[in-house]
Amino acid sequence: MPLDVQLRQAKEAQRQLGNTTTTQRNAVLEAMVALIEEHEDSILAANQDDLQAAAQHGVEGPRLARLGLTREKLSSLVEGLRTVIQLADPLGRGQRWTLPNGLILQQVRVPLGVIGLIYESRPGVTIEATSLAVKSGNAILLRGSREALHTNQALVDLWQTALRKTDLSPDLVQLVADPDRSVARALMHLKGLDLLIPRGGAALIQSVVQEATVPVVETGVGNCHLYVDAEADQEMALHILLDGKMGNPAVCNALETLLVHRNIHETFLPRAYDLLSSYHVVWHGDETVLRLIPDAVPATEEDWAEEYLGLHLAVKVVDSAEEALAHIARYGSGHSESIVTNDYRRGQEFLSRVDAACVYWNASTRFSDGFQFGFGAEVGISTQKLHARGPMGLDALTTIKTVAYGSGQTRDF
Amino acid sequence: MPLDVQLRQAKEAQRQLGNTTTTQRNAVLEAMVALIEEHEDSILAANQDDLQAAAQHGVEGPRLARLGLTREKLSSLVEGLRTVIQLADPLGRGQRWTLPNGLILQQVRVPLGVIGLIYESRPGVTIEATSLAVKSGNAILLRGSREALHTNQALVDLWQTALRKTDLSPDLVQLVADPDRSVARALMHLKGLDLLIPRGGAALIQSVVQEATVPVVETGVGNCHLYVDAEADQEMALHILLDGKMGNPAVCNALETLLVHRNIHETFLPRAYDLLSSYHVVWHGDETVLRLIPDAVPATEEDWAEEYLGLHLAVKVVDSAEEALAHIARYGSGHSESIVTNDYRRGQEFLSRVDAACVYWNASTRFSDGFQFGFGAEVGISTQKLHARGPMGLDALTTIKTVAYGSGQTRDF
Repeated sequence: MPLDVQLRQAKEAQRQLGNTTTTQRNAVLEAMVALIEEHEDSILAANQDDLQAAAQHGVEGPRLARLGLTREKLSSLVEGLRTVIQLADPLGRGQRWTLPNGLILQQVRVPLGVIGLIYESRPGVTIEATSLAVKSGNAILLRGSREALHTNQALVDLWQTALRKTDLSPDLVQLVADPDRSVARALMHLKGLDLLIPRGGAALIQSVVQEATVPVVETGVGNCHLYVDAEADQEMALHILLDGKMGNPAVCNALETLLVHRNIHETFLPRAYDLLSSYHVVWHGDETVLRLIPDAVPATEEDWAEEYLGLHLAVKVVDSAEEALAHIARYGSGHSESIVTNDYRRGQEFLSRVDAACVYWNASTRFSDGFQFGFGAEVGISTQKLHARGPMGLDALTTIKTVAYGSGQTRDF
Repeated sequence: MPLDVQLRQAKEAQRQLGNTTTTQRNAVLEAMVALIEEHEDSILAANQDDLQAAAQHGVEGPRLARLGLTREKLSSLVEGLRTVIQLADPLGRGQRWTLPNGLILQQVRVPLGVIGLIYESRPGVTIEATSLAVKSGNAILLRGSREALHTNQALVDLWQTALRKTDLSPDLVQLVADPDRSVARALMHLKGLDLLIPRGGAALIQSVVQEATVPVVETGVGNCHLYVDAEADQEMALHILLDGKMGNPAVCNALETLLVHRNIHETFLPRAYDLLSSYHVVWHGDETVLRLIPDAVPATEEDWAEEYLGLHLAVKVVDSAEEALAHIARYGSGHSESIVTNDYRRGQEFLSRVDAACVYWNASTRFSDGFQFGFGAEVGISTQKLHARGPMGLDALTTIKTVAYGSGQTRDF
């Protein structure tokens, strides 16, 4: 079906959804919970088809891993759906005030309208992002990757069944299935689309941000740093490093660069290297690191800026917290940054001066995630400053409208 | 001075401002109040220079009017500054919650950073927008029009004096004075600028929205409608029409199109025409209007979409509220729309279904204004849905950052 027809149908359906109650929108999510549990086997079978085809096309490593669904993963997605059901309805809320002339102004939170999502292999997004879109009264056009087509088709079929069961239009959740790249480009220029969210690797996101003429929120490129200060609890720092690098190396909140204060580098770095070497993490170090860690390879300028999304780590020794802050300001992507220190002033200064969506003190960057934050799910993690920043939950899919109740008020006459 | 140097200096100064207290930022505004009152004569003299030069270059009508400052206008701008001083500080606010593992998350509202403003003749903007920028901890680069250069220079000098008096860097408020158009274009591509706001006519706004590669909020094109329903209080409707069209025809919240229900058009339209004809408003009507109002000229397709900003009014008779809603959906610019009716269901439906920043029931669209809304001032009226919508006050110049206080929390290890 042509994209403009999909959009028109989505817009019509969205006008209907905008007038529904919280209960009606939650009913869709509840139906989806039941449908996923009922059709678990067929979802996993569709996913197997995708995995086999991808493997045959030479897809491997983290990319193949992201494509896979398991019973455990499905059950955590269902848990996410249940959390979204429990969350307060974002619609309708807003402050109300009265002008001296008696005009009542009320800010009402309303859906954005029709949201487009361009994403890579992870099919869980088809559940997560859609649950947030539906709960917040929006229609969604899903442009998943070609690799995940069978899984996404199975999941969108279930969403449409859930919508029909609750007397809503299936047009609210649509797959943009044509694998041709020109269709993705057309989505970036689809006049009337209220928001386009790219979710995936740096290349995808940059191409959308640069090409799109519809409103876009830039998400997710995470060149995340861990700065281990001179006053750090080194055991804690090792634990946070391991979690940040190895919890899931393929995602945007994973650690990519380790900065260590010179005063402790001689004790900390060998322990850190030993810890990560059992996971075969390749170190890209500066000169000081190379002297201490013979297996490290020299870091290039590109390494400091790189989002590896794999078993690599850039490592640098800094003379001060100030140098760490300057390094992060220069190479960070504004996603998530962490400091480990027991020094109060350095911790506060790090939180205050790092210009990023999420800044951690004595905790792992891996918490930058809508589910972890308690949003039930996320449509992405915004690394821009306008509209939304950090994990995007329900509120990020709404806008406001001011409605005014008057009794003939005029301003100048 | 080259733009990138201005930006770098503004960024440095902004980092300092971001760490100031509410009291310090208010002190700048208080100093500005005193300086405006002290230097009123020289401000008005600079404005006279601009007005004379503009008149010599053939500027006239609303455009010349927008350029002019008076003692009354200055005193209302000072009143706006005093309101902004009284407003709650937007910075630092944000919800705080604790995850089950004890990780404390705190959303902190922080300044956007450096804001650019491209605006046309109205020099009051140099006071209004800057007051909001400073109060919300931002630096601002002001690109006013060539016509207002003397006035803007005088006002920016006062801002810089106010900053010096309060021990802050004058680089926080800078004029982009070079009148060359290439400089305005360079501002649209100034990497590192956190937000660019175009404020002015449709041509200016469209050129910025289409050309800019920095983040932009689209403001202000207002093709505003008044729909007079069959159940309207006609006296009230006439009053709201007069206010909307003649309060200030040159601004974005002025009325451009009148829609009248067929049931009452024979009584309402002649009275409306008589009322506006004393102000020499030209009517552009549909066929029904032309039959009733002989002096009206035929409305073209362009008239329905036009933001006249002057003494013209498009007028159409509709068969139903539904037709009015469809007309507004087709031609409206998403700024401000108004219905006059005493029918409860039609009023509620209008408020709910019109997709615009501000929707009025029995009141004038002229209230779409930051000062009227109680924001003290505005940096513009957003007609987009992302980030900000409607009059933009302090909150629109901030973003959020999530800071996390941990004790070694990790997610996967």
